[in-house]
Amino acid sequence: MAMRMYDLILKKRNGGSLSKEEIEYFVNGYTRGEIPDYQVSALMMAIYFQKMTDEETLDLTLAMADSGDKLDLSEIKGIKADKHSTGGVGDKTSLVLAPMIAALGLKMAKMSGRGLGHTGGTIDKLESFPGFRTALSEDEFIRNVSEVGMAITGQTGNLAPADKKMYALRDVTATVDNISLIASSIMSKKLAAGADVIVLDVKTGSGAFMKEEKDAFRLAEEMVQIGTGAGKKTVAVVSDMDQPLGYAVGNILEVIEAVDTLRGKGPKDLYELCEALGSCILTEAGAASDRMTAEKMLREVISSGAALEKFAEFIRAQGGDDAFVYEPEKLLQVKEIHDVRSEKSGYVFRILSDEIGTASMLLGGGRQTKDSVIDLSVGIVLKKKVGDYVEAGESLAVIYSNSGEKTKEAEERILASISISDTKPPVRPFIKGIVAAHK
Amino acid sequence: MAMRMYDLILKKRNGGSLSKEEIEYFVNGYTRGEIPDYQVSALMMAIYFQKMTDEETLDLTLAMADSGDKLDLSEIKGIKADKHSTGGVGDKTSLVLAPMIAALGLKMAKMSGRGLGHTGGTIDKLESFPGFRTALSEDEFIRNVSEVGMAITGQTGNLAPADKKMYALRDVTATVDNISLIASSIMSKKLAAGADVIVLDVKTGSGAFMKEEKDAFRLAEEMVQIGTGAGKKTVAVVSDMDQPLGYAVGNILEVIEAVDTLRGKGPKDLYELCEALGSCILTEAGAASDRMTAEKMLREVISSGAALEKFAEFIRAQGGDDAFVYEPEKLLQVKEIHDVRSEKSGYVFRILSDEIGTASMLLGGGRQTKDSVIDLSVGIVLKKKVGDYVEAGESLAVIYSNSGEKTKEAEERILASISISDTKPPVRPFIKGIVAAHK
Repeated sequence: MAMRMYDLILKKRNGGSLSKEEIEYFVNGYTRGEIPDYQVSALMMAIYFQKMTDEETLDLTLAMADSGDKLDLSEIKGIKADKHSTGGVGDKTSLVLAPMIAALGLKMAKMSGRGLGHTGGTIDKLESFPGFRTALSEDEFIRNVSEVGMAITGQTGNLAPADKKMYALRDVTATVDNISLIASSIMSKKLAAGADVIVLDVKTGSGAFMKEEKDAFRLAEEMVQIGTGAGKKTVAVVSDMDQPLGYAVGNILEVIEAVDTLRGKGPKDLYELCEALGSCILTEAGAASDRMTAEKMLREVISSGAALEKFAEFIRAQGGDDAFVYEPEKLLQVKEIHDVRSEKSGYVFRILSDEIGTASMLLGGGRQTKDSVIDLSVGIVLKKKVGDYVEAGESLAVIYSNSGEKTKEAEERILASISISDTKPPVRPFIKGIVAAHK
Repeated sequence: MAMRMYDLILKKRNGGSLSKEEIEYFVNGYTRGEIPDYQVSALMMAIYFQKMTDEETLDLTLAMADSGDKLDLSEIKGIKADKHSTGGVGDKTSLVLAPMIAALGLKMAKMSGRGLGHTGGTIDKLESFPGFRTALSEDEFIRNVSEVGMAITGQTGNLAPADKKMYALRDVTATVDNISLIASSIMSKKLAAGADVIVLDVKTGSGAFMKEEKDAFRLAEEMVQIGTGAGKKTVAVVSDMDQPLGYAVGNILEVIEAVDTLRGKGPKDLYELCEALGSCILTEAGAASDRMTAEKMLREVISSGAALEKFAEFIRAQGGDDAFVYEPEKLLQVKEIHDVRSEKSGYVFRILSDEIGTASMLLGGGRQTKDSVIDLSVGIVLKKKVGDYVEAGESLAVIYSNSGEKTKEAEERILASISISDTKPPVRPFIKGIVAAHK
């Protein structure tokens, strides 16, 4: 008997599990436009309430990964690694991690988006370098990964179109926040992108999609399970996004901070994250026998300058002016640099990451809609982070702005988002945990 | 702030209640095509899981009733009654009830559908009378109700288009079976049809939409609550549809049985149902002080022949040849009349109504798809009902057919659907209960 979408919706609604064949039927039918949006949105809502089993989640991910083009990285020699972040405020991790890994002889093959929200995506940040090309052809991408050891491009080809279509539908039907659907959406794109090792940077806290730590771990576990089930070495690092990562929020400001980190002078949390993610890649790829060894290797490419050199080589290989790698401050073009001063003395108790991100977006550093044009220079650099002591009148943050009016608005938001207390906040670990296939 | 459909879906998904304004926003937006199917189907699935409050259900019904044309019956003098059946096998109730009520001086203004399934709808059955017109204009409908005391027409005008559109969507997204949505769908059309008294014929059992008695009562209660909330006198009768109603299943065969009942010689259950529904109308309309009085009035219009005369007048008023009212057997045109004989002796323990209905449909008496052409003559007349004793070789049912092959198929189905037992089945009441606004 022919399958009918109706029966799949009914089955899921009534708490049943969909078979691999049923999942492939609806994913392929939807991608081809044979199954209408209204049936898929009803199914998504039924899934929201009835959940999916691990098996269904894997089948859905594989079906979406298979729904369009798949990158074939087989001609690139060695282990190819990819990294995905669930997103946060001040997240410039890829700019640091990829050159570190590539400097160690592994390959980082990364596709990245532009991003909507607080700042641009990695692609936008890289466009700070004059001449840098973010739309590589598949051949160029493969060649650069082979020769340089890393490449970062906007999405090439038609990867996981089922996910794209389904995500757009979920986004307008209040069916985004189901862990299995989130995990399969992310992983379908990663599987289609063809790397051997997938490292997942899962954030939790006020500036993250997953506000609760337990949800972040569930998402991490689900993604690792999918990746492993699909035959990829997959590992996830769950880290804190209760305050912005590092100090800089804004495109060029983040490039500057990334370069500082590649010089060994970056913020502690950012380096710690790159070290954790990098160690995972190295051990999963078999390039390091254990975490200690991996961390040592990573430290060495920083202290030797090899990682910074790799970054410059990468910028050059994609057409960018690598002179700015050594003087990234010269990229900045702002009319005003404004200190946000603390109104009282005390410990920084809390920083609402989302609000700092929004302040950056309002300055022009992020996209409010798909068509917004980003001002790459504007943004915010925090001077204090949670636990730091601040004197009344001392600078809490610096605003880089091209509009006096926006500066004022950003200052108000920043002040409102940073709470100062007489008591020191409890120290909480930045890395919450690492989720691997076998614990 | 402008309302957004997304927020309504999210609110309902999270277990909230939609306000009257929110419900009107989505019903009107959907009717006008401004809110897409995929958002409404997601909302319907969220409603399936999170349910609706009584207030939401009433608001939804009123918004749907107001979404298109509404019949204005105000120029018709006296109390106008309408009746709705949730449908079953062998249901010819309207053909008997309406003339009984009209013969007592009340007005029955009924719109009816053609129906998909076991037999045609009331409209199809009435078309058995040569010349009978089922597509009255609104003016004709109102005039006939005024002058004859009753009229039955296919839907006139664009009543409750929101319900029509939403039902079609629910039908393909597995979101039909939610009591509140079913109740509001039925009641929105009844409210738009403008009667003062609404009597609901709710069936339960194997041949009904509501298989379980408790579900039938819940639906009845919900509909009575809506009708009452909308200011209409509303009452529901819950009755048994675990076996077909009466003996006849098939269009003309049912007309013959209806005429027999109007002559006082009909099946006990069919008369009992018309008596219960009729009593409700008479007492709700204030035409009878109590049920006993009402039943007596109803018996009188049968024994006097007034109800049968009213039926003939009604057939005539809508262009039909009323000579056949007195000899309806003459309408039948079948090639074969075939006895289905019992293979063993015993008590009829169970009759699967659905299967009898399907047998009738396969003979050509019902529509499998919207475009099927009905053979009005074919069908089945049961000779035994649950509790009756049958001898081996004695007739259980008679098939009226125009195809030998179909006769064979129908016979097999009928035999398989009637179970014969050595023990007598328990006697169960036919009328399960009456649901009124104040108990």
